[in-house]
Amino acid sequence: MSQYVYGKNVVSSMLKDKREILTLFLLEGRKDSETVNLAKAQNIKIRYVSKAELDRLVKGNHQGYIAEVREYPTYSIREIVSAIPEGKQPLIVALDSLQDPHNLGAILRTMSCVGGDGVIIEKNRSVSLNGTVAKVSVGAIETVKVAQVTNLAQTLRKLKEMGFWIIGTDVNQAQDYRRVRYDMPVVLVIGSEGSGMRRLIAETCDLKVRLPMEGDIGSLNASVACGILLYQIYSQRFPL
Amino acid sequence: MSQYVYGKNVVSSMLKDKREILTLFLLEGRKDSETVNLAKAQNIKIRYVSKAELDRLVKGNHQGYIAEVREYPTYSIREIVSAIPEGKQPLIVALDSLQDPHNLGAILRTMSCVGGDGVIIEKNRSVSLNGTVAKVSVGAIETVKVAQVTNLAQTLRKLKEMGFWIIGTDVNQAQDYRRVRYDMPVVLVIGSEGSGMRRLIAETCDLKVRLPMEGDIGSLNASVACGILLYQIYSQRFPL
Repeated sequence: MSQYVYGKNVVSSMLKDKREILTLFLLEGRKDSETVNLAKAQNIKIRYVSKAELDRLVKGNHQGYIAEVREYPTYSIREIVSAIPEGKQPLIVALDSLQDPHNLGAILRTMSCVGGDGVIIEKNRSVSLNGTVAKVSVGAIETVKVAQVTNLAQTLRKLKEMGFWIIGTDVNQAQDYRRVRYDMPVVLVIGSEGSGMRRLIAETCDLKVRLPMEGDIGSLNASVACGILLYQIYSQRFPL
Repeated sequence: MSQYVYGKNVVSSMLKDKREILTLFLLEGRKDSETVNLAKAQNIKIRYVSKAELDRLVKGNHQGYIAEVREYPTYSIREIVSAIPEGKQPLIVALDSLQDPHNLGAILRTMSCVGGDGVIIEKNRSVSLNGTVAKVSVGAIETVKVAQVTNLAQTLRKLKEMGFWIIGTDVNQAQDYRRVRYDMPVVLVIGSEGSGMRRLIAETCDLKVRLPMEGDIGSLNASVACGILLYQIYSQRFPL
């Protein structure tokens, strides 16, 4: 099966990095010799099509550039864990029922920047890997390993047996995120945009952290919260 | 002029907070007595309309709930600065050509959570306040003051004269963000998603900070980067 990724910058950086593209769809009449030459040099099939046809392929703002690619690969938990280099402090993010592709894309991007080892999402409960995720991830979807599991609570218990600490994010019964030492294998669990972690998931956590905050809103955007926590972990592991 | 905000949670929390709604548009046939009763108790006009009509009002996923509200108010720099309480360390964010409404919404939300004083955007160069921004901000658009200025570089120079430090985010000639003391009035400048700060804006900065990172992507999502830096500032100002 194939999928579509889109946007001028995304397609252009895929071409420059020589990533596999099955077909390149460009808006008819579009003059962009740099893109066309890059594609031709890699023997990529180019199809010039109408705006209406591009709109049918993807829902987002494609800017006249769509690349058809093989479906995004996913990995098993075993593959993710066994790929972690000897001596590296493991760092995995698990997403409990995250819905927004912008959030998943931004989290993959942050995970790439902190050298994270993998992201776990639950089949049927979370947004899955699609073109919007790919675009927002600006390429991280290709480098950060994603596992799609059927039962997240069970997966977290398995990771716990493998020596991981399951760290949840919550407002209740949680410690200030700056008080915790993250010098062990960590799975950071991020709850859904609307209602946080489910009870079953919260129960598997070894500890819970919260971000201090003012005002009435009471929570941050999921990808922002995840970014702050990942940089806290990264920053502690690689101090100044 | 009026604008539209949308989404079940957003509309529901507006009703609960008794925020002004000019007209409430609901999908015809929608049974939601809680929402309807809340609206009736506040004498809000309800109109049941078709999905096609709702789709005409807003572009995003409205879930059958759209509220027509007065246009989002904006403030002058003077109004933002003079509202900062005596003794509080001022904290302003300036956005240079930010394009994505998800990023602006998430940044407003983070600013609300760190008790920030205002956000500056540039007319014609940045995304402006709209329904998507409101939805992603989960209400912060109502509480965080936004200034729309015609010339951001000039505004930053004016703020500098008022005693603010202009702190830019850049990868070049920048210090690790953990090395800086933020115990002065701060304007944090966030560059655009594609190309960072413009040269003219970068030149007004008193200092530039960067986030350490691995991998090839080289930058974070704008709202994630902004969140990490705002929490660094907040965390330093309110230590454990």
